[in-house]
Amino acid sequence: MDQVQKILQGDPRAAARLMTMIENGSPESITLLKSLYRHTGRAYVIGVTGPPGSGKSTLTDGITEELRRRGKTVGVVAVDPTSPFTGGAILADRIRMQRHSLDSGVFIRSMATRGHLGGLARATNDVVDVLDAGGKDYIIIETVGVGQDEIEIVRSAHTSIVVAVPGMGDDIQAIKAGVMEIGDLFVVNKADRDGADKAIMEIEMTLHLGKGTDGWRPKVLKTVAVKGEGVAELAQAILEHQAFLQQRDGRRQKGKERSYWVFFELLQERLTTRVLEGVASNGTLDGLIERIAARETDPYSAVEEVLKKAGL
Amino acid sequence: MDQVQKILQGDPRAAARLMTMIENGSPESITLLKSLYRHTGRAYVIGVTGPPGSGKSTLTDGITEELRRRGKTVGVVAVDPTSPFTGGAILADRIRMQRHSLDSGVFIRSMATRGHLGGLARATNDVVDVLDAGGKDYIIIETVGVGQDEIEIVRSAHTSIVVAVPGMGDDIQAIKAGVMEIGDLFVVNKADRDGADKAIMEIEMTLHLGKGTDGWRPKVLKTVAVKGEGVAELAQAILEHQAFLQQRDGRRQKGKERSYWVFFELLQERLTTRVLEGVASNGTLDGLIERIAARETDPYSAVEEVLKKAGL
Repeated sequence: MDQVQKILQGDPRAAARLMTMIENGSPESITLLKSLYRHTGRAYVIGVTGPPGSGKSTLTDGITEELRRRGKTVGVVAVDPTSPFTGGAILADRIRMQRHSLDSGVFIRSMATRGHLGGLARATNDVVDVLDAGGKDYIIIETVGVGQDEIEIVRSAHTSIVVAVPGMGDDIQAIKAGVMEIGDLFVVNKADRDGADKAIMEIEMTLHLGKGTDGWRPKVLKTVAVKGEGVAELAQAILEHQAFLQQRDGRRQKGKERSYWVFFELLQERLTTRVLEGVASNGTLDGLIERIAARETDPYSAVEEVLKKAGL
Repeated sequence: MDQVQKILQGDPRAAARLMTMIENGSPESITLLKSLYRHTGRAYVIGVTGPPGSGKSTLTDGITEELRRRGKTVGVVAVDPTSPFTGGAILADRIRMQRHSLDSGVFIRSMATRGHLGGLARATNDVVDVLDAGGKDYIIIETVGVGQDEIEIVRSAHTSIVVAVPGMGDDIQAIKAGVMEIGDLFVVNKADRDGADKAIMEIEMTLHLGKGTDGWRPKVLKTVAVKGEGVAELAQAILEHQAFLQQRDGRRQKGKERSYWVFFELLQERLTTRVLEGVASNGTLDGLIERIAARETDPYSAVEEVLKKAGL
């Protein structure tokens, strides 16, 4: 049986192998992804974001458990901007999820930034497709931080969850910046700490300032994920949002938005690679950079030069 | 006198006007940037990053003051992934820097993500060039979060500073992921809190695992930025790193790395815009996205189709 068949039947090892190929940028992975793509689009995608230390992993763990209890299968993609140098930290983080490791209904994958010139978002989208084609009912994408790519990854989910913790002071502001308008659900985790009600109030006040474009009124929930408190309610809220989208044709709309984002990321990556390879192959790339660095040309003129040579 | 002349003479209003044009993606801004570019390359660029709530703004404020005390002029670029929806938060954040507002030797600019399809890194690079051409001796770029673009923005600086705070537990791990290897200097801010020494020890341990490639041994410093403690030492460490780079031809090397990054970001943005406009102008973009969403084609084949049409 070939790798595509195995993945479609939910073979975790075949899926993991393809994910590694995706991360390494293997050309073969593209052939496989093309074959898999028409089997995607069934999974419901949940995005979870929030600052470091907000307990996203524990919450993801809790949501996974609730969905399993309802008989649903779950894929988890943890996006960590990291490097070989710091791979250990990620490993430690993932250990928390190990209690699902013997459950064939759960598949967990950590994504790391390998190179330093993009590609993380594209690779994450590809891994989601592999899980989707493999029949996972729900896919949870978890991202650290408030970076632009990370926001987009979560925005492209069907349900986006923004996690905050009480008593971070400035952090509520930092959370607002960028992710406030993408949240369908807001979670104040570690809600047994001082300041939980204040954090909830601040989020609700900010929500009142904005207006949802799709008729959904974002919810704010309290959890203490390490004790499992509020997690069932969170899972319930996810299912409500899913039902809401289903009723209002929102799922098709979100699917289209997601397709645009996936297409855009891929186009950007492949275009740049294609054109840069062209410049590098005739040995002019290094010279061009030297000239920019020496101020003999400027970046805009250099890019125009390259575009012209590429016939664009 | 034209706008370029005014900017070169350090006119803050002319500079601010160009920065707004850059943020709005005005085509005229490109003409101006091309004229300015050969006057850049003199400023020393400092990148400051760390998680929300770590006190980056206060530290930046302190560094600015120390540099001013030494008679140096300073530009500050605060990169906040935000939106019109949340602009208020940023404003509040900037108020802390207001004590420099009457000092013509300091120029402060907040950058916000306008659209949601990239361009922040490119715009930030352009704003740095405007400050550089305007004669600022030092430019401090401050970024929130640990996103991929944000890491690259800081990496492209001459001196990169990574800020942590004690007692964040998991956060030290999250900080390690992605930014540990880009730091020339590490600052444990709010060092009057419990756990400062532990945080320092953890950072030093992680540093021992990695090895610097350029001969510089990263330093770990303690600060209490709100009280000004340790800030003079931090400024001193920045100057030491600058002297180190100067001695070892490191500045030229970093300049070249920065040129590559600037070129890459710009190429990526302009290529994608150019090609997407082509697809959009003949009305096929929407149809293409529909077909991807309906699984009639896959993103890889769709991108290949577009590349082929563009003759690439």
